[in-house]
Amino acid sequence: MDIVSTLGRERGNENLLFGQALKVVNVGLDSFRQSLVDQGVGVVGVNWQPPLSGYIPLNETADGLSIDAINGRAVGKLKASRPMLVGLAVARDIVPKFSGKMLLHAGAPVGWRSMCGPMKGAIVGAILYERWAITEADALQLAASGDVRFEPCHHHDAVGPMAGVVSPSMPVFIVKNEPFGNLAFASVNEGLGKVLRYGAYSAEVIERLRWIEKILYGALARTIEKLGPIDLRTIISQALHMGDEVHNRNRAATSLFIRSVAPALIEHCAKSEAISVLKFLDSNDHFFLNLSMAACKATLASIENTPGCTLVTAMARNGVEFGIRVAAFGERWFTAPAPRVNGLWFPGFSESDANPDLGDSAITETLGLGGASMAAAPAIVRFIGGDVALSTQLTKEMAAISVSEHEAITIPSLDFRGSPLGIDLRKVMETAILPVINTGVAHREPGIGMIGAGIVRAPKECFESAFAYGASMFRAGT
Amino acid sequence: MDIVSTLGRERGNENLLFGQALKVVNVGLDSFRQSLVDQGVGVVGVNWQPPLSGYIPLNETADGLSIDAINGRAVGKLKASRPMLVGLAVARDIVPKFSGKMLLHAGAPVGWRSMCGPMKGAIVGAILYERWAITEADALQLAASGDVRFEPCHHHDAVGPMAGVVSPSMPVFIVKNEPFGNLAFASVNEGLGKVLRYGAYSAEVIERLRWIEKILYGALARTIEKLGPIDLRTIISQALHMGDEVHNRNRAATSLFIRSVAPALIEHCAKSEAISVLKFLDSNDHFFLNLSMAACKATLASIENTPGCTLVTAMARNGVEFGIRVAAFGERWFTAPAPRVNGLWFPGFSESDANPDLGDSAITETLGLGGASMAAAPAIVRFIGGDVALSTQLTKEMAAISVSEHEAITIPSLDFRGSPLGIDLRKVMETAILPVINTGVAHREPGIGMIGAGIVRAPKECFESAFAYGASMFRAGT
Repeated sequence: MDIVSTLGRERGNENLLFGQALKVVNVGLDSFRQSLVDQGVGVVGVNWQPPLSGYIPLNETADGLSIDAINGRAVGKLKASRPMLVGLAVARDIVPKFSGKMLLHAGAPVGWRSMCGPMKGAIVGAILYERWAITEADALQLAASGDVRFEPCHHHDAVGPMAGVVSPSMPVFIVKNEPFGNLAFASVNEGLGKVLRYGAYSAEVIERLRWIEKILYGALARTIEKLGPIDLRTIISQALHMGDEVHNRNRAATSLFIRSVAPALIEHCAKSEAISVLKFLDSNDHFFLNLSMAACKATLASIENTPGCTLVTAMARNGVEFGIRVAAFGERWFTAPAPRVNGLWFPGFSESDANPDLGDSAITETLGLGGASMAAAPAIVRFIGGDVALSTQLTKEMAAISVSEHEAITIPSLDFRGSPLGIDLRKVMETAILPVINTGVAHREPGIGMIGAGIVRAPKECFESAFAYGASMFRAGT
Repeated sequence: MDIVSTLGRERGNENLLFGQALKVVNVGLDSFRQSLVDQGVGVVGVNWQPPLSGYIPLNETADGLSIDAINGRAVGKLKASRPMLVGLAVARDIVPKFSGKMLLHAGAPVGWRSMCGPMKGAIVGAILYERWAITEADALQLAASGDVRFEPCHHHDAVGPMAGVVSPSMPVFIVKNEPFGNLAFASVNEGLGKVLRYGAYSAEVIERLRWIEKILYGALARTIEKLGPIDLRTIISQALHMGDEVHNRNRAATSLFIRSVAPALIEHCAKSEAISVLKFLDSNDHFFLNLSMAACKATLASIENTPGCTLVTAMARNGVEFGIRVAAFGERWFTAPAPRVNGLWFPGFSESDANPDLGDSAITETLGLGGASMAAAPAIVRFIGGDVALSTQLTKEMAAISVSEHEAITIPSLDFRGSPLGIDLRKVMETAILPVINTGVAHREPGIGMIGAGIVRAPKECFESAFAYGASMFRAGT
């Protein structure tokens, strides 16, 4: 009982307590853990619940292969991944299986009738942008008519923040995972305020999208063509030493991106284009978000469809449901109602205005960045609520449900410990620690936009149903 | 003895221990402090020494004015200061009292014969750059002849990193402290490697200085003229949220500077100039250092010559002596032999190659940045040796010898506590906590350059002699 007495004595010092408490969780001694719970250790915010419903220890596949070994090889691929920005193209020309009147959206599949307000707003905006309709009323009618196909970004190797709507004419970044050759795509970040991804579709929104298509796209595409591929992992790694977690804080990564492209942008573009593009980039500290997301998607895609692998490959929200994917189970979604965000609200708004959790951007947390690497970004805690101790605690929790840490993406405040890497479905089930996500929040009505930001946990039901689905394929260990 | 027993129990947790320990220091209970020392609390690295030699409590000036009140008003001026980059000019045209064959250098006054190796190297380089001599031998002869006047940068409202040599043809930044109108000047940072400030003077060094004079100067001067003044305090404040402490880590501040000037640079300069300047800026993460130093100098100059004020206004090193200035004592230097740096050495070098502490860059620590704000820059600890706990501890120590914190320059990892502000000579004397500086280290021979980086403490003798000088002007308190 020595550890317990140490814990009791040092209560109030979350880091030390949590660091020791987690070791206890990992060895899985239930009676010992219960004695900690009895002593009130839960006061520091650790989820001292029993395992999630349906949990049993699973060590081997039905073929007798070690799941730990399979996961170890998979996490090795995640570490070996080098997501490179290799260019931009118009979505219809590059995104696989993208044709006709198709619009991509965030999260798992969802039909028009079921879509949340901000996603409907973004769909209306995309239809106006594509000139498939001229008025809002006509756009709504077209969206409901069945003549537009709606499919998840994730079904097309793509990711989109918030509503995540990608339409055929939109330029997208092309990110190539060098050692494995797979591609991932993401739209171009529009900035904050009235923007499509938060469900706004006013004239200024459409105009900005057209400017991105007409000016920014060509300028950046030419620049990257001349400059050669840009190593996104290196930028992410540096940004985590500069206070970003590359989900809701991207100021450093955006700055580094600007530095890396500016000279070539001037050299290869018209002066007025270069000026307007650099002004836009400078005005938009979130510019790198979409690059971060595509980098994470390209990385995680390298382990999709790995037999016997229990690592989570996607967490994504369509604003109605939260969905996860697991490497062993390929394209299958495991969904649950999208949770509400515990947030801070802009003046004039409250929780009752908030849409449930929305967007593909949780791909960053799936790779151990964003909310999972909050300890790297203490400056963000005021933006999403919370304090520095919370940010450290969250990262340590995420480490407890991950199989490894990323040696190339380290967190200075934790003495250069690597970012958590490889969320193991089994660990989530066993510890009942749910992945944390930090996120912006959209108004639940279309056309309004962002109203706040906060923290949310992935719903346990996603993991329970994935585990139940997979349990029959696996064997309990000794 | 309740605090002591808590401290004893929690030993090993530096932050908590130190936070509590400092409270003890500040109430000045010597017997109590001694009991802490007896219990071995010193293991966490706090200097549990008795007050420095000659210390007596001083509360009032000879006129009966409260020193605390005077210091409070002075620190208010430091907080109200807004250092703005208003332009660049050639040193001979803008730096006060700068004429003829004069060279400025770092630190307190020092003659040619006494100068350290790297400063001699920089002097030779500046003479070659000015074409006052063509060969190294002629330059050495001229330097020794008495025909060149050597004066400290600080005597001309200027600051220079390392050797700090400023020659008449060099362009300098002009930083204006808006509310008070005073100006400060700094040379343009050359980057790392073979550079003048570290005592190198080979052809590439001179050539880079000429490029700065011919290309970069004009381009940046025109850009800032068109753009208007750039608020350096805002950049510094943001950079401290991005892992910089703006002395030895300036990557974020340099990135933000690049973002702020790039569009105007393109607009107002020839394309080839804009490209070469942006490439140079992108290649030099230390570019902002000289701006940071000029901002700190412009801020601290606002309280120089304040009767009765015991705040330190400069710490500067000429490579032979370490010198400080105190607000009440104006331009007077209080010096002691320059200490050796506790550093990490580049491959092939060791402590025996190291020149003693050098440069005006400790002006950043004088304003509570650099080593004093190490807690904001955990990523730097590997560069200078040490770990994250040390960086937090150092900032808390500096807070203990400062009269306030800067509300506009905050440190996220300390839950947005302000950076330490206003080093009080009396507090240094009372606590025997010496200001910490993080610094690059030059080879002791001229012509070689940087060989490492590390941490150093200001020598206590500077403070003891300043205190002894001032004690007669002040009255001991009740």
